[in-house]
Amino acid sequence: MAVRNAFYAQSGGVTAVINATACGLIQEARRHPERIGRVLAGRDGIIGALTEDLIDTSLESDAVIARLRSTPAGAFGSCRYKLKSLEEHRAQYERLIEVFKAHDIGYFFYNGGNDSMDTAWKVSQISEKLGYPVVCVGVPKTVDNDLPLTDCCPGFGSVAKYVATSIREAGYDVASMARTSTKIFVLEVMGRHAGWITAACGLASENAGEPPHILLFPEVPFEPERFVTRVGECVDQYGYCTVAVSEGLSDASGKLIADSGTKDAFGHSQLGGVGQVIAQLVKDRLGYKYHWALADYLQRSARHLASRTDVEQAHALGVAAVDLALQGKNAVMPTIRRLADAPYCWEIGDAPLKDIANVERKMPAEFISSDGFHITDACRAYLQPLIEGEDPPPFRNGLPDYVRLKNVTVAKKLGPFSI
Amino acid sequence: MAVRNAFYAQSGGVTAVINATACGLIQEARRHPERIGRVLAGRDGIIGALTEDLIDTSLESDAVIARLRSTPAGAFGSCRYKLKSLEEHRAQYERLIEVFKAHDIGYFFYNGGNDSMDTAWKVSQISEKLGYPVVCVGVPKTVDNDLPLTDCCPGFGSVAKYVATSIREAGYDVASMARTSTKIFVLEVMGRHAGWITAACGLASENAGEPPHILLFPEVPFEPERFVTRVGECVDQYGYCTVAVSEGLSDASGKLIADSGTKDAFGHSQLGGVGQVIAQLVKDRLGYKYHWALADYLQRSARHLASRTDVEQAHALGVAAVDLALQGKNAVMPTIRRLADAPYCWEIGDAPLKDIANVERKMPAEFISSDGFHITDACRAYLQPLIEGEDPPPFRNGLPDYVRLKNVTVAKKLGPFSI
Repeated sequence: MAVRNAFYAQSGGVTAVINATACGLIQEARRHPERIGRVLAGRDGIIGALTEDLIDTSLESDAVIARLRSTPAGAFGSCRYKLKSLEEHRAQYERLIEVFKAHDIGYFFYNGGNDSMDTAWKVSQISEKLGYPVVCVGVPKTVDNDLPLTDCCPGFGSVAKYVATSIREAGYDVASMARTSTKIFVLEVMGRHAGWITAACGLASENAGEPPHILLFPEVPFEPERFVTRVGECVDQYGYCTVAVSEGLSDASGKLIADSGTKDAFGHSQLGGVGQVIAQLVKDRLGYKYHWALADYLQRSARHLASRTDVEQAHALGVAAVDLALQGKNAVMPTIRRLADAPYCWEIGDAPLKDIANVERKMPAEFISSDGFHITDACRAYLQPLIEGEDPPPFRNGLPDYVRLKNVTVAKKLGPFSI
Repeated sequence: MAVRNAFYAQSGGVTAVINATACGLIQEARRHPERIGRVLAGRDGIIGALTEDLIDTSLESDAVIARLRSTPAGAFGSCRYKLKSLEEHRAQYERLIEVFKAHDIGYFFYNGGNDSMDTAWKVSQISEKLGYPVVCVGVPKTVDNDLPLTDCCPGFGSVAKYVATSIREAGYDVASMARTSTKIFVLEVMGRHAGWITAACGLASENAGEPPHILLFPEVPFEPERFVTRVGECVDQYGYCTVAVSEGLSDASGKLIADSGTKDAFGHSQLGGVGQVIAQLVKDRLGYKYHWALADYLQRSARHLASRTDVEQAHALGVAAVDLALQGKNAVMPTIRRLADAPYCWEIGDAPLKDIANVERKMPAEFISSDGFHITDACRAYLQPLIEGEDPPPFRNGLPDYVRLKNVTVAKKLGPFSI
């Protein structure tokens, strides 16, 4: 079979391990020079394809590519940019074909979450609807853990480990100070619609009374009275109270408790600040001094505390994406299949992109305790293996030693294209 | 000489390594049974002494005490409580003597920052002014790094490592997203009056253009126009801009940029939120999407990312405190003496408490660059060794495995005392 180049791009919010997927994918492509020529990475996601802004990854040494495994964020740049449908914006798809033809791209790998799997699905239709032969494989990534048909999403396990560690550590701090100072600590975490990250905080509480004492999920409508009452009970019983709250916490009418009012390119509201809102509520009602932390990007970029399980899965999914493409499987995504909880056992599977695009996996109702304030044993059994194992990056001068690529652009062959 | 018991207490805001000091102190005391009987720890700092709420550390095994070295926060509880002067509140000092007599306490160790060294200094005067024989040694601890006469303060190096790592990681994240999404990232860090922690963020930027791009120190009056201009220049040059800001950032009149209006037991304002204020300022003026993070307690409890240098110094200072006491040195504090920058070489010294109590060490002016937005090479030379080395705690079930002590209370011999 002919040797053709591959296109790879990273999309949506980045993670601590998306580069581990890039690492696996590029390494596996290099193992198949008889089928895959160069891996050309889109600079800033699909925008790189549309604007013919392609990075020649073949100019990076094997040693540098290997270091991607322990480097957080998107080494080639990511984007929040959603393709319209073929019917709505045919010119974009025709442009993609132009670029693919100009650079002999026969494999298209798109590494992202829900919105990105939608883009990958749309691109996968080029082959059939516009007659250009390209094998399209979506590669999962999202800290939100909300892609269906996979046991989990790379990036989530490391966020989970980070937030559970953080609330445990802060919990020790507050317990020390509670007598004369801070009694309430709130950690605000990501998770717009699904409470996976909030739930992961719950892993830090292995025995009754251990932080976090209260979890506030986006799935559970916020009831201020019940919350304040529960906080008061915790302070009475333990002397302090620690809370993990999802940025997406909403009231019974679905209104976000904190909404800064701005929206991102996908039309999502930009969130942040609910941690302070609920901490202040406690202060106003019970008078307790509080502290709150907003983990924000720290949680999804904390490669220094990555889950080894997560890193291994992220890498394996990159490898599997290439293998699926070489098998000619178009419009699929490699997945993680859980075989056993403890010890955790998993294998790689695959699923059709059409069943994944735009489908958001919610937390099962049975993962939330009946009072709505914590996780169940079923949830623990699911989450626990995902944070297992450490995989620290190399350190230099006391700090994680992350790689920066040269990111040399391939010479353009086409005219400009306005996105 | 007679065997007498020792009192040890933790005071003020806790750190990732104050328990390493407790570990060193208790271990060293156990090596001298001919002089020191039991180490009785005050529950919640000096309050434990005043209320005769004493923890018998002799009931904890050597193995458990050893685990304190890798456990963050204050294992015996801390407090924010400042003794008044002997003249103002003689009853408190008489009560301390009562408690010391009742439990045969001949050594008093107080582990804390500025306010705590003041307390330690006042207690050290008991011996002379009230005729009770007790050797009093202050033991340094503060993430603020603002105690004089010591090269650095235990707790600071680990915060420094955490914030520098965090802004480096978040910087990789923002660089990935900047084209279509977040262009501005702000990390708010601790440091009420001194910019040591803010300065430490600067260590992450080893080459021109690397995050953080701008540091906002409490020592440099905030000028909105100059700041916004500099942010715009960074975005033009690098595509994005990362900022580390001290919670204590103030304007030219000394007014805090963010002041929540509440005060702690020492009368300090409770800070927090300046990160959002300056991020929103950029949004309003330049229109860039921002994210911000509030590290809060996470930064000072992050034992998972402690500096090995910091852990070693914290432990050594605990050992040294006992050694000083056994030499009969009253009213002193063990210190770190720097002998060389690179490779870092240090030894233990000591200094009189009267020269330390209530003296706040500011950052030298020559540590801040002439434009006020970054650190100088002299600052790097000072800070760099303090974050060197890793000392990860043991992990269990994917999370740091920290110890909880039994903390058994010694039977009371006295009546109650109201504080």
